[in-house]
Amino acid sequence: MPINEQRFITDFEQVSTIGATGDGGVHRPALTDADLEVRKWFTARLELDGFSPKMDGAGNISAVLASDNPDAKTLLIGSHLDSVPHGGRFDGALGVITALEVVRTLRDNDAKLPFHVEVISFSDEEGYNIGLMGSSAVAGKITQAALENPRGGREQLLAGMARLGLTDDSILGAKRDPATLAGYIEVHIEQGTRLSDAGVNIGVVTSIVGMRSAWLHFGGEAAHGGTMPLMHRKDALWGATAFVQRARNLIMSNYTPGVMTNGIISTQPGAFNIVPAEAHLSLEWRHGTDAEMDEMKDDLFGLAEEIADDFGLSLQIEPVGASSPATMDPRFIEAVEAAAGELNLSTTRLLSFALHDPQYLSEHIPTALYFVPSVNGISHNPAEFTKPEDCIHGANVMLHTILQLAKG
Amino acid sequence: MPINEQRFITDFEQVSTIGATGDGGVHRPALTDADLEVRKWFTARLELDGFSPKMDGAGNISAVLASDNPDAKTLLIGSHLDSVPHGGRFDGALGVITALEVVRTLRDNDAKLPFHVEVISFSDEEGYNIGLMGSSAVAGKITQAALENPRGGREQLLAGMARLGLTDDSILGAKRDPATLAGYIEVHIEQGTRLSDAGVNIGVVTSIVGMRSAWLHFGGEAAHGGTMPLMHRKDALWGATAFVQRARNLIMSNYTPGVMTNGIISTQPGAFNIVPAEAHLSLEWRHGTDAEMDEMKDDLFGLAEEIADDFGLSLQIEPVGASSPATMDPRFIEAVEAAAGELNLSTTRLLSFALHDPQYLSEHIPTALYFVPSVNGISHNPAEFTKPEDCIHGANVMLHTILQLAKG
Repeated sequence: MPINEQRFITDFEQVSTIGATGDGGVHRPALTDADLEVRKWFTARLELDGFSPKMDGAGNISAVLASDNPDAKTLLIGSHLDSVPHGGRFDGALGVITALEVVRTLRDNDAKLPFHVEVISFSDEEGYNIGLMGSSAVAGKITQAALENPRGGREQLLAGMARLGLTDDSILGAKRDPATLAGYIEVHIEQGTRLSDAGVNIGVVTSIVGMRSAWLHFGGEAAHGGTMPLMHRKDALWGATAFVQRARNLIMSNYTPGVMTNGIISTQPGAFNIVPAEAHLSLEWRHGTDAEMDEMKDDLFGLAEEIADDFGLSLQIEPVGASSPATMDPRFIEAVEAAAGELNLSTTRLLSFALHDPQYLSEHIPTALYFVPSVNGISHNPAEFTKPEDCIHGANVMLHTILQLAKG
Repeated sequence: MPINEQRFITDFEQVSTIGATGDGGVHRPALTDADLEVRKWFTARLELDGFSPKMDGAGNISAVLASDNPDAKTLLIGSHLDSVPHGGRFDGALGVITALEVVRTLRDNDAKLPFHVEVISFSDEEGYNIGLMGSSAVAGKITQAALENPRGGREQLLAGMARLGLTDDSILGAKRDPATLAGYIEVHIEQGTRLSDAGVNIGVVTSIVGMRSAWLHFGGEAAHGGTMPLMHRKDALWGATAFVQRARNLIMSNYTPGVMTNGIISTQPGAFNIVPAEAHLSLEWRHGTDAEMDEMKDDLFGLAEEIADDFGLSLQIEPVGASSPATMDPRFIEAVEAAAGELNLSTTRLLSFALHDPQYLSEHIPTALYFVPSVNGISHNPAEFTKPEDCIHGANVMLHTILQLAKG
């Protein structure tokens, strides 16, 4: 049972015309004109295909292919149709059109399933107002505080909500009872080069990485940049710069594919001719499990202390943020791998280093997320591209993952 | 012929009470109340000692010990009585009190000299308004533009000038004809630890170092701090931090006592989770000759280019400033060394890494500058200290340097 390739590609090309920027990209930030247009298109498409689309209190649009068993749970499949400003046409939309094609194929083949299958397009995954808004609402993780402080300002969010008839209460009330849900499956473009580098068809995500961050404050002694000999200096920037160099090597050698980033650095007093008394360095690190992030923390902080000692500096470490990894469901992971195997597609397990709608859903219900290859890893950019055959592979894997799960 | 140690130390202790901050330091920024008080004290002291003090158009206070030859040239000796805000009591004042004691000793001993000797206290060496104001005026190097843009603002300068009856024209007119001047000699505290580290009495300055500065702009590619693997990053901060580490080693190994300083650093876009696309690093280097600074430039810029290549970054080098070294007079240097030798005091030749009144005077007339040891190298700080015996050594060296020069 394969998907209908031509129908799938035609619909993907059609959705790509909505908010098209003329350079291969799309501009469909959540709750803007183009987002409303793509919502209208998706709703009409579902109706034309014989489904009964509805919108929930968070603006998520979905339609159900019902099981013969009216008491069955519901398996959600989908992604999002909004884009970042002037972004690519695959990020999100590929997952929604895949889910659409999969329910059509299941219906066309009169598949007998022990669960309902619901295709769903989540609101504002990209966070033009609130990142993961629709999926976090379904998972019951959105808060009034988040609604009060959207990224684009409260006024912009309220204006957008009004266009769909949403209210704070309707969004907060969009949570779905996990007892009624069989799980969630999403296909997404990789937005990296690991699959193409390795020549692998399907990347099965084991978890969306967690993130920790801290400020490293190195303290030395201000001194005249002329009169103080180099050997007598306590230059705070020497500590911070040695850390950047050595921490990179440490993480590459011992923690790949875990990552670290030093994105911000500054000195005090901050003059051409004054040896820095203070150097402030941002540090962020990500990995797939809390245990690995703990180990990274111990190694990174230990390195910072060793360097501070070496250069005669003080060191203050100020924790900033922490989020735990989102773990995908082992049975769902195995179902994706089995489906790919049936289709003679190669797979690899990997981490997702970017947030996706499964972030909160995976805490709520069994969830799978898998990637298809991105050409050159380019994303959030009009040049974003995934080959049609890879899109088709991804859709067939979703279809067969559902058939795998249906075996129980 | 030695100086009168008790008279010398007593006067130094007395001048140290003016603007005293109670912690061993003094607060005598140029043209403030305490500066006016110390000017009054110095003028009265010269009168009590039988000299005829005068003030020139730049506010420099001086008095002449005349040669028997009325057509003789004039040898200037001195330093400055102003201090940095809440500074130490030796920086500048030691040189003025030394010069005062030396002319008194010469007069007491009825020394027959082929030049007049003029003790002089220069205005605003420290730059509360305009650095080296008095000495640059005498050297004819001060400009109307400098007078228009003093560090503390034009209003503050004008108010201070009014207290002494100075005008722009009087300051610009304070230049002295080099044909009438035999040279300039100054003793100053080292403000470093080279003399005490080496156990040497007198540091004879060969030049006040020149300075060059530039911005190094490293350019990479902004990337998501989660999704971009470390091995694929073009992180501009990796280039800037590698430069700081390797440039320090290069300069310490190959150019000591030359120095370099990286005082300012920043990144763009500058966020915890974004790989820096740009890193901007300030670079300043100093050495005793233009040739050495040229070599340092070639090595430092070459290193920056090598590092940019290694990390796949672009590099733009933006020159900022340049000042040439101020070279002391060889005959005057030898006279200082011969004087110290007569007194069984050890000497070493060294560079001055800080500006002093000889900066511009040395371009104008033959000049000598020498240092006496600073305890722990502390300066511009109430804890600034030079032992009385070292102050006395410095004064006797000045006396005997003059006697050396008098031999012709």
